Amino acid sequence: MSYFDAASSAPLHPVARQALQASLDEGWADPARLYREGRRARMLLDAAREAAAEAVGCRADELVFTSSGTRAVHSGIAGVLAGRRRVGRHLIVSAVEHSSVLHSAEVFEADGGAVTRVPVLRTGAATVEAYREALAPDTALACLQSANHEVGTEQPVAEVAAVCREAGVPLLVDAAQSLGWGPVAGEWSVLTGSAHKWGGPSGVGLLVVRKGVRFAAQGPVDERESGRAAGFENIPAIVAAAASLRALRAEAAAEAVRLRELTDRIRARVPELVPDVEVVGDPVRRLPGVVTFSCLYVDGETLLHELDRAGFSVSSGSSCTSSTLTPSHVLRAMGVLSEGNVRVSLPPGTPAEDVERFLSVLPETVTTVREKLGAPTSATVVREDLLVVDALGKRCPIPVIELAKVIGDVPVGATVRVLSDDEAARLDIPAWCEMRGQEYVGEEPADQGSAYVVRRVS
Amino acid sequence: MSYFDAASSAPLHPVARQALQASLDEGWADPARLYREGRRARMLLDAAREAAAEAVGCRADELVFTSSGTRAVHSGIAGVLAGRRRVGRHLIVSAVEHSSVLHSAEVFEADGGAVTRVPVLRTGAATVEAYREALAPDTALACLQSANHEVGTEQPVAEVAAVCREAGVPLLVDAAQSLGWGPVAGEWSVLTGSAHKWGGPSGVGLLVVRKGVRFAAQGPVDERESGRAAGFENIPAIVAAAASLRALRAEAAAEAVRLRELTDRIRARVPELVPDVEVVGDPVRRLPGVVTFSCLYVDGETLLHELDRAGFSVSSGSSCTSSTLTPSHVLRAMGVLSEGNVRVSLPPGTPAEDVERFLSVLPETVTTVREKLGAPTSATVVREDLLVVDALGKRCPIPVIELAKVIGDVPVGATVRVLSDDEAARLDIPAWCEMRGQEYVGEEPADQGSAYVVRRVS
Repeated sequence: MSYFDAASSAPLHPVARQALQASLDEGWADPARLYREGRRARMLLDAAREAAAEAVGCRADELVFTSSGTRAVHSGIAGVLAGRRRVGRHLIVSAVEHSSVLHSAEVFEADGGAVTRVPVLRTGAATVEAYREALAPDTALACLQSANHEVGTEQPVAEVAAVCREAGVPLLVDAAQSLGWGPVAGEWSVLTGSAHKWGGPSGVGLLVVRKGVRFAAQGPVDERESGRAAGFENIPAIVAAAASLRALRAEAAAEAVRLRELTDRIRARVPELVPDVEVVGDPVRRLPGVVTFSCLYVDGETLLHELDRAGFSVSSGSSCTSSTLTPSHVLRAMGVLSEGNVRVSLPPGTPAEDVERFLSVLPETVTTVREKLGAPTSATVVREDLLVVDALGKRCPIPVIELAKVIGDVPVGATVRVLSDDEAARLDIPAWCEMRGQEYVGEEPADQGSAYVVRRVS
Repeated sequence: MSYFDAASSAPLHPVARQALQASLDEGWADPARLYREGRRARMLLDAAREAAAEAVGCRADELVFTSSGTRAVHSGIAGVLAGRRRVGRHLIVSAVEHSSVLHSAEVFEADGGAVTRVPVLRTGAATVEAYREALAPDTALACLQSANHEVGTEQPVAEVAAVCREAGVPLLVDAAQSLGWGPVAGEWSVLTGSAHKWGGPSGVGLLVVRKGVRFAAQGPVDERESGRAAGFENIPAIVAAAASLRALRAEAAAEAVRLRELTDRIRARVPELVPDVEVVGDPVRRLPGVVTFSCLYVDGETLLHELDRAGFSVSSGSSCTSSTLTPSHVLRAMGVLSEGNVRVSLPPGTPAEDVERFLSVLPETVTTVREKLGAPTSATVVREDLLVVDALGKRCPIPVIELAKVIGDVPVGATVRVLSDDEAARLDIPAWCEMRGQEYVGEEPADQGSAYVVRRVS
């Protein structure tokens, strides 16, 4: 098996395992107690905090350990919004943040707050200009991830932090995807991280709040972790998290170069090997190990299943694989194709041979899936209706496949209407038009679902 | 070293360690993913949920894993209060609940809710009658711990659950202290637990919500754990928690008998060996391994320090050891002496010799502390002022020590006033009077602090 989904969760780093096992004997007691076992636990906790703070680039008393990266985000956003309530009730997030940030924003909105969702470029990158425009006198907090979890695009965090600082607004950086590779540049105010993303154990997140940032922890009072992370400290896991972060950083520079070569190769070869593929995300400013592409006429879930059978574990932002059946909000915000989406995220240490094997297996796998779905090839376009394609009740990628089947029979200059009640069609039909050089005219209401109008121009 | 503070945190059970190590290799992936590593993680999680549910006595789909017992309590209370908001905004808790329950109640009050704190008997037990009285048409939730964490007293949970059920009010049981010993009896509605209390790893709590209880999870949406516990699942720790709960239960009946004999011996011997000691908590309905006593004229922090030097790790509910410097709310609610308080909580497997050694060391240790503080003995009562003892600016147990020094010189029938600005005096002076057979007249305002009036009756 080749595990290519490090962006979801990385296998435990050997140093994390060692540190965890070593501290199981020393770190189980309550660090608030004055007796020997408690003092030992406290020492381990303090040392881990120092190590983590050094890796993050902050003071130890600015960093607390939470039970997950998600908790760090929830607590960080809620704490700053409450602490700066007098300034105003406006929150800025990018449209491509992790769900923990976006769901925090929704809760804030439900409670009467105002949220600006900053759009991104087709590469997935937010712009400094968009953040500058979004800042208002009542802005309590701005949030921007260090790098995107689905497409790997790095965000202009240092630049956005500078603009926020000028406006006197704190910037919260969700650094879950990048913290293993290095500290976050720039004068951010709040930072969050997640240990299992860098090969640390599950159950540990980081929340860093710079001195001087107004912060009011929400929820019931709890004295642990400076009142910012309720519940008994998970010290063995915290020790393992800090130790593995240091260990990974020692290897990070060299490993980043190596993984970047491997993902560059995937970026270059996949479009050569597989027809009708769009590689997404910024080609240069991106995480070393992440590459994402979408395949026309492919159902993401089936593709993942076939790749799993072939020995590759990858994930997908396709509508058809997520449990909520809505297309990835990241791909949607970027305006790129969401169907047949595959994210490859290589863990440190991935052998080059595994990547070669992936490239050798992928074309046939995609072909198999396309054949199952009856996707068009040059020989198989079958015309069913000149002007209307009825794809009601059919899930992505069927509506696009049906469209592709008839487009050859539409006179140049004429239009075809695709009826669909699948939410993903709204994203995928325009994306298909852009990839195919056809004109997307727009969406019209229909009795059921919507009608998507496409003009054949070539 | 003898570690006698299992009620704070228990050393890792050997089965927990084995299960943790075994599942580090299998349980790190995202259980929501469809590929092989994800499916393996999901299987481990499902199996752990089944095992934990069986031990608790609930359905697997009623149980979620949280990141700590505290989180389980916070989420459980907030979820039921929100789910039953239409019924009303009244919450009932006992006065001796864990701080996670009481702090949840405070947050609810700050948000406009009403809270009834049910008083307890001098044993620490709540009564069914008090709960029955507290129930009102707008009661959304009642909470009662299965057993008290500071004095070990078991609560009449099954009886209170029956009364609540009659009134249509769900009962939340914080079972953190008892879950290792057996399932909670009675028809409770919500139950919480904490793995590190039974020898499982840190970082795992349980939240059980019976089918049919209206529950609305609070905070940002998160799909994991039925939407009731945000953040990536800590599967190796969850597996270890479930495995150690099963293992502990297999030994529980026999070990409970053995530990109860040891704590019975402490209960009987300490008052014989040490003068001016009050053993607190219910002598019969109590946890097997917990025994708590308070020593007059002793500073809890110094006593703990001396016991630590002698090789014993215990904790204390005394005002002088907690970080907030207020006396234990549990001892206060019971109306018992809080000074020089010691809680002995034996972990399973504690050798009888360790208990004997504790009993042999304790008397001298207490004497040493009393001598340091200049506590009264029959020969050293020095009269300073007939009617007023000025203990302003002095911390517990000094005010009581000063009182004891002069009482011999107060004519029988006359009163003495103790001036004190230490919060603990409000609890300890009446408790001293009860132990000494003197009459506590009451508290009067003074220029600084309060004046506590005591009449010598013997």
